[in-house]
Amino acid sequence: VFLNRMSRYEVLSEDAMATIERGWRRLLEEIGVAFNHPEALRLFRAAGQIVEGEVVRLDPDFVLEQVAKAPSEFTLHARNPERSFPIGGDAMVFIPVQGPPFVREGDVRREATFDDYTRFTKLAQVYDDFDTAGGLVVEPNDVPLDSRHLDMQLALLTLTDKPYGGSQVSLTGALDSLAMAEIVFGGPEALAREPALYAIINANSPLVYDSRMLDSLLAYSAAGQPSVITPFLLMGAMSPASIPAALVQQTAEALAGAALTQLVRPGAPVVLGSFLSHTDMQSGSPGFGGPESAIGLFCSGQIARRLGLPWRAGGGALTSSQVPDAQAAYEGLNTMLPAFLAGANFVMHTAGWLESGLVSSYEKFVVDLEIVRTLREEFTPLEVDEASLAYGAHQEVGHGGHFLGAAHTLERFRDCFYRPLLSSTENFERWARNGGKDSAARATAVWRAALERYEQPPMDAALRQQLEEFVTRRRSELGD
Amino acid sequence: VFLNRMSRYEVLSEDAMATIERGWRRLLEEIGVAFNHPEALRLFRAAGQIVEGEVVRLDPDFVLEQVAKAPSEFTLHARNPERSFPIGGDAMVFIPVQGPPFVREGDVRREATFDDYTRFTKLAQVYDDFDTAGGLVVEPNDVPLDSRHLDMQLALLTLTDKPYGGSQVSLTGALDSLAMAEIVFGGPEALAREPALYAIINANSPLVYDSRMLDSLLAYSAAGQPSVITPFLLMGAMSPASIPAALVQQTAEALAGAALTQLVRPGAPVVLGSFLSHTDMQSGSPGFGGPESAIGLFCSGQIARRLGLPWRAGGGALTSSQVPDAQAAYEGLNTMLPAFLAGANFVMHTAGWLESGLVSSYEKFVVDLEIVRTLREEFTPLEVDEASLAYGAHQEVGHGGHFLGAAHTLERFRDCFYRPLLSSTENFERWARNGGKDSAARATAVWRAALERYEQPPMDAALRQQLEEFVTRRRSELGD
Repeated sequence: VFLNRMSRYEVLSEDAMATIERGWRRLLEEIGVAFNHPEALRLFRAAGQIVEGEVVRLDPDFVLEQVAKAPSEFTLHARNPERSFPIGGDAMVFIPVQGPPFVREGDVRREATFDDYTRFTKLAQVYDDFDTAGGLVVEPNDVPLDSRHLDMQLALLTLTDKPYGGSQVSLTGALDSLAMAEIVFGGPEALAREPALYAIINANSPLVYDSRMLDSLLAYSAAGQPSVITPFLLMGAMSPASIPAALVQQTAEALAGAALTQLVRPGAPVVLGSFLSHTDMQSGSPGFGGPESAIGLFCSGQIARRLGLPWRAGGGALTSSQVPDAQAAYEGLNTMLPAFLAGANFVMHTAGWLESGLVSSYEKFVVDLEIVRTLREEFTPLEVDEASLAYGAHQEVGHGGHFLGAAHTLERFRDCFYRPLLSSTENFERWARNGGKDSAARATAVWRAALERYEQPPMDAALRQQLEEFVTRRRSELGD
Repeated sequence: VFLNRMSRYEVLSEDAMATIERGWRRLLEEIGVAFNHPEALRLFRAAGQIVEGEVVRLDPDFVLEQVAKAPSEFTLHARNPERSFPIGGDAMVFIPVQGPPFVREGDVRREATFDDYTRFTKLAQVYDDFDTAGGLVVEPNDVPLDSRHLDMQLALLTLTDKPYGGSQVSLTGALDSLAMAEIVFGGPEALAREPALYAIINANSPLVYDSRMLDSLLAYSAAGQPSVITPFLLMGAMSPASIPAALVQQTAEALAGAALTQLVRPGAPVVLGSFLSHTDMQSGSPGFGGPESAIGLFCSGQIARRLGLPWRAGGGALTSSQVPDAQAAYEGLNTMLPAFLAGANFVMHTAGWLESGLVSSYEKFVVDLEIVRTLREEFTPLEVDEASLAYGAHQEVGHGGHFLGAAHTLERFRDCFYRPLLSSTENFERWARNGGKDSAARATAVWRAALERYEQPPMDAALRQQLEEFVTRRRSELGD
């Protein structure tokens, strides 16, 4: 796992932090959060919170007491122990794009299929840069809706040997995901002891958790699996058109959800999520990668650190662009670099996100992989010691010569600099001779070659059979 | 001028800073710097430095004493006083691409002409984002070499009313530039009191200043005009293949040049320059926008602040890419964003740089303008106070509604978020209906419209005639 040992870029003064804290305390206490789920309401009521209809008005100190029960760092376990990783502290975990119903492959944009699902999942397995494939690299629209979570969980467990994301679209999805994990990881107690899959729990902002998300939160928390509690705030639509107001709302929503996980199972791992961007007031569409989301990242990281929980940065390489062009790259880097500066622990949508999250793009996947590799190198502390000054090379070269043939250079030319995956430094003539392709066009060959290199990780045949029998039985019970 | 009020991102420990200081002191003292110019050698000898042939071995404390005479902040004056700006402190000055012999316009790559020179200069005048057009937005290959500096200086003085860059390719160029400035700014004393043009003085690394650059350094310093002393280091070629070694060399070279300016005229304004990137060891070509140059920027800014002089970040939006594609954008942003984090005062190559500096691209100019505007917004401190929390909006909207129609949103929807110049948030259908153009293709219309808006700033007719007569006379004296 990548450890971000560089310093954090913090932009909020102590005064500003105090103002924001007063804000989320007031929201929790005076306006409260609606939970559309009787069990959630029962838990809050039993814990002494004020429940009025579906709205829970929360004592902020009570919320902080609950959250303090969650671990500040925990490990997500893989069926291949070498793939396990920590979440929290300096660790920074990368997950490819999640959720799009469409794909873009070269110049073709079309509905995503299960074949796309397996291809992106394989790419996330091939590249060590990804700690997990997540759970939903695309929405596979060609398999039946009611049972597609079974197909996806089976793919994640058999095509990869990394930790993964469970289904969280329905109670059925959550329970089936947990049941399959129990088959692989040795039953519910073992799974709770060593969590292996996570759930993304989005608030239905402003200030609501809906019943489907709460079904999943309750199921995963009860099983001791981590919930990544994520308010999804497009300022101007789901929150006020103000960054401080959005930070307040985001913190209130995330803390309320995190507190609930601890009422279900004290000590259950939980990640504070953020996903803060803006609404383009001209088009009415979401906008990504602008200054507001970068500032939001700096602040969200600082607030999460204060609260002592691992932190999910919304994305990743987010963009509103329709194609993997310059806009896609500058917007993507302008979310990814701030995520590094802000000390994100859990980075969703690291690679492939396009068109405000409607599209998983094969070519953008490669562009973003180059970006994240560059940043991992950029956020590795520089060693400065006498040897690094290469004084001998200066003695050798002197004035006006060059260092290409210096002993110091020859000893290290192979690995002294970052070696790009996609970027070209070819001069114009050579580049033109090689077809004059821009980076998006060159990316096609990169991901195709990576898919060729894919090897399925081994799995015990009996275990595999057990999983397949479970899927077959459940599929038929679900009527598909 | 933009003031960067955000905190600086510093990555070097005090130990690392001390190691680097030991390094540049040793280089200056033991290996020294070659100055291919008798007057420079005379000045150093007269000041008690050890001169052996053309190599000057410098006492580092002497160098620091000289550098301490230069102002930590100064003003560059424009013929339109509203266009004057400070260099140093929190001020951050933006200059478009400088120097390329080629242009790219849409899909066409060709030699740059004087028409390109005037068009890019006009773009730098139209957009307030640029504090100056610089002096050499492209190399105009269709006008005679010996007198083209006259054409360019006349264009800068008449097409813009901003401060500008003088010619520094030859002594003739420097002296003619100064003479023309004296016509406009009221003679040599007035010009020295209120400097109006600057010179980019590159070291011929490693550890050499050549005679043409020294001619210019001596002329501009004597006239009290600022020199921007810039080692141009591609690690592995012009410096050892090690970031700390390159930082040491860069500091030694820049300080030696800066010290010389103070021997010429104590108190002459000077800017410490950096331009640190790497050589792609596969292609042998320069590489830009990778992790090494970003780390170099963080460190260079920290070192320059310690030395108390204004600091030039190499670029800007640098890239090796051949076209304004995803690579151009992520490499560009990965030099521009670090320049903001590192607290650059003087940002060359802010917009238009392509193909490792061989090409000025009209479309990349627009891409980069979007990047710098985004970052100016991103590096504006966030105001966090009670009003910014928009509590009333939460009271109005409550749970599960939306904020699009809230009073708070309606009051500020016009300017609550950054409004892009180029980026699109259009949904796929609308974008496709509008031609399905990527950002580079859309950029063409943006710069064309900006050129349409260009208005020549007024100039006194007699002054203009004086300038034209000077140019005509000098052109004929130079035989063109």
